[in-house]
Amino acid sequence: MSRFFLPHVARMSGYQPGEQPRDGAYVKLNTNENPYPPSPRVAEAVAAALGERLRRYPDPLGTAFREAAARHHSVTPEMVLPGNGSDDLLTIITRAFAGPGDVIVAPAPSYILYRTLAELQDAHFLEIPFAADWSIDPGAFTASGARLAFLANPNSPSGTCLTPAEVAAIASRIDAPLVVDEAYADFATTDCVALVRDHPNVIVTRSFSKGYSLAGLRLGYLVARPEIVEGLVKVKDSYNCDTLSLAGGAAALEDRAHFESCRAKILATRARLTAALRALGFTAADSQANFVWCPARPDAVAIYEGLKSRKILIRLMRYPGHPPGLRVTVGTDAEVDLLLGELAGLV
Amino acid sequence: MSRFFLPHVARMSGYQPGEQPRDGAYVKLNTNENPYPPSPRVAEAVAAALGERLRRYPDPLGTAFREAAARHHSVTPEMVLPGNGSDDLLTIITRAFAGPGDVIVAPAPSYILYRTLAELQDAHFLEIPFAADWSIDPGAFTASGARLAFLANPNSPSGTCLTPAEVAAIASRIDAPLVVDEAYADFATTDCVALVRDHPNVIVTRSFSKGYSLAGLRLGYLVARPEIVEGLVKVKDSYNCDTLSLAGGAAALEDRAHFESCRAKILATRARLTAALRALGFTAADSQANFVWCPARPDAVAIYEGLKSRKILIRLMRYPGHPPGLRVTVGTDAEVDLLLGELAGLV
Repeated sequence: MSRFFLPHVARMSGYQPGEQPRDGAYVKLNTNENPYPPSPRVAEAVAAALGERLRRYPDPLGTAFREAAARHHSVTPEMVLPGNGSDDLLTIITRAFAGPGDVIVAPAPSYILYRTLAELQDAHFLEIPFAADWSIDPGAFTASGARLAFLANPNSPSGTCLTPAEVAAIASRIDAPLVVDEAYADFATTDCVALVRDHPNVIVTRSFSKGYSLAGLRLGYLVARPEIVEGLVKVKDSYNCDTLSLAGGAAALEDRAHFESCRAKILATRARLTAALRALGFTAADSQANFVWCPARPDAVAIYEGLKSRKILIRLMRYPGHPPGLRVTVGTDAEVDLLLGELAGLV
Repeated sequence: MSRFFLPHVARMSGYQPGEQPRDGAYVKLNTNENPYPPSPRVAEAVAAALGERLRRYPDPLGTAFREAAARHHSVTPEMVLPGNGSDDLLTIITRAFAGPGDVIVAPAPSYILYRTLAELQDAHFLEIPFAADWSIDPGAFTASGARLAFLANPNSPSGTCLTPAEVAAIASRIDAPLVVDEAYADFATTDCVALVRDHPNVIVTRSFSKGYSLAGLRLGYLVARPEIVEGLVKVKDSYNCDTLSLAGGAAALEDRAHFESCRAKILATRARLTAALRALGFTAADSQANFVWCPARPDAVAIYEGLKSRKILIRLMRYPGHPPGLRVTVGTDAEVDLLLGELAGLV
């Protein structure tokens, strides 16, 4: 690598996203993509935005999108900020609140990107271990002295979800922004958007990648108090969201029937997948996300490799201090049947 | 603003992009958008990528796009990195090479974003003034001790362009990456991509916003040595480019006939606009970009306001130590005729 890189950048390894084979032959149950197509209104909205509008820069704040998201959550547009995927928003948030040497805290095991974001800022990354039942001690956040806290809720890889009251307890105990990363909240029974009213330090992030089948479009948004959004606008690139994603995202958000129909299918398949995995001997936890987590399998690598050789990709997850586990995305019923059939021969 | 923001973020004012009125009634000659529609192949490529592919995450490295850009510039794909507009790439570069307290240098007056990028990193921003003839002293870059240098070439607002030999002279005299921001190179007679072979510190950035009429799509790329690209990949968001922009951008790049036809029209109109502005008494410089710069007008504010009241937007630029000037985007011939007609009544 070039010697010009900053030392903390040179020594970091970088985030490794899940495999994205260009070969379309795989049954892909490794990166929590939605198995159903996006709302047909997305293609209509994108098609309507093609041509003349592409010549022009997008609206820097995505006003029409903000208004749609604000209506959806019953907040004001000033409390919404779209981003180029929720990863972009997590990057913006990290740069806004935590500098070199500051502490960034998150539960563990959780979304591995939080550590990468801390490393990019040359900040200290501190992990608070989840208890065996996936609960967490709010006092540990206080003791961390963090300038910024991340909480994936529902969590990956576990699929578990803290209640809004449990999240509020954390928010009340820290003097720093608490980012509630709700990338998977579309598959959960609760969410934390309402906490923003009473907790000036809560920032809720959302994604269109999972619940809305739009991982390829790169769109997410956050909900926070206006005085948080106002400062984040200074940190973001002026035109971080493109015209097509803003138009497509608003259309997806407004097609509630399509969303609910896909969600209902995924929740039904998730229940069936969880039961079948348990029947095969996995200790699969109840999930509030669009994946099921099978922790602590000594044969995790063999299962992962065996499935891959049969053109089925699942996610092999390794966390320090834990035996490897397997995270399985909830696909279509047909995909899950294929997986279960192959798994039966591998365990 | 929330008290949680880092001090250097709290005190900065943030970059103000040019006005983007949602009211479509303006003749918009203020943000250097291309007046001609993008290649029809863009809409075809985007339409082909809608639907099923949107469910999936994009290729994190944009392999097909890299291959297309590499073919276009006769470099290897490992020397190309796409970004969410060239602003995204400038952000990634800044985070990779310059930390708090480091010096970032750029000529002045130039693209105002460079200062914002430095401020976001809590770095020192140092300006090297252009000479009256828009040349610059390479030795001043050496003396700056900079960890990172930006050079907009062609420059905004001047529209002037250093030769590759002049840029090479700067690159040879600094021990830091030199970013040659070629957002406007599509309208110039030379470019600096070939410098990357002999200068391991040169990074050339390109944009689809101007030459390819795709400001709304958000796509840019850089060309640099593989050991630079490899490190920048660690700093970028994994999925910073969406499926539609990668597909549309590659299609635009490959439609050379459309590009050349639009470029020829803009260059002809630029010559006519420059001559007409001079005839009206402006000291318009020869431009190698898709705008013309009229510096040092005591009546700049009155002209800007007068045109705006007539629904014509141009860019009023104020730089410390300089009287205000006017930057006029090269529009269609009809738009330029409208502008010139109104201007004649204002000067």
